[in-house]
Amino acid sequence: MTTTPGSEPASAVPASTHAEIPDLHAIVPAGGAGTRLWPLSRQHRPKFLLDLTGQGRTLLQGTWDRLAGLTGSDRIMVVTGAKHAEAVAEQLGDLPAANLVAEPSPRDSMAAIGLAAAILQHRHGPVLVASFAADHVVPDVASFHRAVRDAADAARAGYVTTIGIAPTHASTAFGYIRAGQSLPPGEGGPAASVVEEFVEKPDAETAAEYLASGKYAWNAGMFVVRTDVLLNHLTELQPPLAEGLEVIARAWDTAERDFVMDAIWPGLTKIAIDHAIAEPVAAQGGVAVVPGDFTWDDVGDWASLATLLAAGEDGVRAPIPGSHVVAVDAPGALVHAAGTVAVVGIPEAVVVQTEDALLVTDAAHAQRVKAVVDQLKAAGRDDLV
Amino acid sequence: MTTTPGSEPASAVPASTHAEIPDLHAIVPAGGAGTRLWPLSRQHRPKFLLDLTGQGRTLLQGTWDRLAGLTGSDRIMVVTGAKHAEAVAEQLGDLPAANLVAEPSPRDSMAAIGLAAAILQHRHGPVLVASFAADHVVPDVASFHRAVRDAADAARAGYVTTIGIAPTHASTAFGYIRAGQSLPPGEGGPAASVVEEFVEKPDAETAAEYLASGKYAWNAGMFVVRTDVLLNHLTELQPPLAEGLEVIARAWDTAERDFVMDAIWPGLTKIAIDHAIAEPVAAQGGVAVVPGDFTWDDVGDWASLATLLAAGEDGVRAPIPGSHVVAVDAPGALVHAAGTVAVVGIPEAVVVQTEDALLVTDAAHAQRVKAVVDQLKAAGRDDLV
Repeated sequence: MTTTPGSEPASAVPASTHAEIPDLHAIVPAGGAGTRLWPLSRQHRPKFLLDLTGQGRTLLQGTWDRLAGLTGSDRIMVVTGAKHAEAVAEQLGDLPAANLVAEPSPRDSMAAIGLAAAILQHRHGPVLVASFAADHVVPDVASFHRAVRDAADAARAGYVTTIGIAPTHASTAFGYIRAGQSLPPGEGGPAASVVEEFVEKPDAETAAEYLASGKYAWNAGMFVVRTDVLLNHLTELQPPLAEGLEVIARAWDTAERDFVMDAIWPGLTKIAIDHAIAEPVAAQGGVAVVPGDFTWDDVGDWASLATLLAAGEDGVRAPIPGSHVVAVDAPGALVHAAGTVAVVGIPEAVVVQTEDALLVTDAAHAQRVKAVVDQLKAAGRDDLV
Repeated sequence: MTTTPGSEPASAVPASTHAEIPDLHAIVPAGGAGTRLWPLSRQHRPKFLLDLTGQGRTLLQGTWDRLAGLTGSDRIMVVTGAKHAEAVAEQLGDLPAANLVAEPSPRDSMAAIGLAAAILQHRHGPVLVASFAADHVVPDVASFHRAVRDAADAARAGYVTTIGIAPTHASTAFGYIRAGQSLPPGEGGPAASVVEEFVEKPDAETAAEYLASGKYAWNAGMFVVRTDVLLNHLTELQPPLAEGLEVIARAWDTAERDFVMDAIWPGLTKIAIDHAIAEPVAAQGGVAVVPGDFTWDDVGDWASLATLLAAGEDGVRAPIPGSHVVAVDAPGALVHAAGTVAVVGIPEAVVVQTEDALLVTDAAHAQRVKAVVDQLKAAGRDDLV
């Protein structure tokens, strides 16, 4: 690197990314099976518990690592299914026991995030919370931290704030966010803009229009918001759910937790935070978006994982240490297997081997892996799903 | 089946296929690595020692089974490399030790077949010999026996006689035989015809012309001939080779076998029987061909094997007992692996798993598997080739 004489030397990482955000608590909903990542993902071993990139850290641990720089290890709360609570605790040695929330049954993302927000508000009064799925990949932590910091400014001003990922291609796999006017400086602007609309996964033509317009960002399901703002919206928009969460949260740190949880949780409204809060509040002008100029992926299938992995000289991605791949006319192959694997004449092949199953497909058909799991279930092979 | 009144009832299998041919000895050259069948085939475990079809018999054993009905178990001689002699003896429990000929080094098919013929002539005087490779597949034994019987008739009359396989498609993987006029009844006709020419593997266009003409058959390397006829041709066409074989054969059943073999064998001319005998003798009008109207394959690669295996309802070929294949949009897949294997979106996929290696390719690229073996050799991975 050369520096112009007299100019200030550039620091390698902006100072802002080093500092915690003192009033921020992170919420990590750790759910979802990741069926299309079979045979590595299983019902008892969902995607967030897997080390997909072969770097020695699972997606959950990668999420933790990314957040700890913003919150320290004391202000991260993980919400997961009861059957995965033990595995989560094992993987996150620094997670305080009080910050592990186990759901007796899945009630979708609004109940999970809402309960965590309600518990935190009971413990600390109104605080800023940021919610990030446990099974996404964000390699550039510094840029991620900058975006969260920007979002926090708008959230403090009262907006439900999301981070819109700058799209790199016309994906049909993600929902989109249409941004409007920038917010005033006191409300998080100019980084933050008001959200005009959330839109569902588009078809290819529409996705191309979104990309060309420059007004759309990918919806990565990242929300930063004050707990009081979130719970007030919920009281207005989903009163029974808000009331149920309040009752549980009030009992959470008491001896009545299990009794109240068992009584209330199963009856809570099952709804995603997007439908419960993001979309209706956006329609009222209450949602902001800040740009996320970083690589992000929800690793929905093996093809998606392949794009995140560095290829060797032969164009092959082989994340497992010690795997030995011989590729002949197979550029872009992804081999997630130990030992010697030869791939001949299948570009973008996907080969995944576990102790009890082998998957062979290619990037173009990676979405159809779900059909394998469906067939195995239909055949009564619960041992394999 | 209905029979016309007054006509003779047809017997299910012609009586002729049940009878041995008393003056016939079979010679089975068991050589060749079958490189394109990696990872199942290895230098120490060549193709003929493998059970490729999952029926519990190796190709060598299948060849034995097919020939024993013509010769009994006393008149089959196997010629193989010294390093495979023990495995051959293990697989063929009924093979008399005296009929197992071990080559110290490979000298191509003329030396192998010629030595066996010379030994047999020393033991029995001139006899009829029939040579069949140890690693071909012929499911219809009755039709095969009929063809050998027809060939034996022409061979007794003094012809080097081959069995020309009726081509089922315009293959570019095999050499062809062009048949001419039928021979007279006393010389094996009308079943046998004179061979006008042997031609090398053609390009696709030429192969299509051959198929359309109806005058060409596949050259399966099957020869039936009197030992005296064969050895006389050899004396005329390859005098040093003929002389060397005669010296070895004279010493074979004596205490001098090893001494003479070590002295003579390494210096023998390395030439295929096709070039040494079949082609030049055909040019003299001394080769006959009889039709072989049966399924035959030299199982040159995995695609070739796939065509020989029965497909399940899902279009999948899974010859290994206990293998469990889930195929989604993968018609024609061949899975040679134990356990659960899912193939998604790759028609005619080829998946082969051994203890130490996995191959993934498709039928269209099966020929290129040789490149994998080449790469492994270049990388010094002799443990895998």
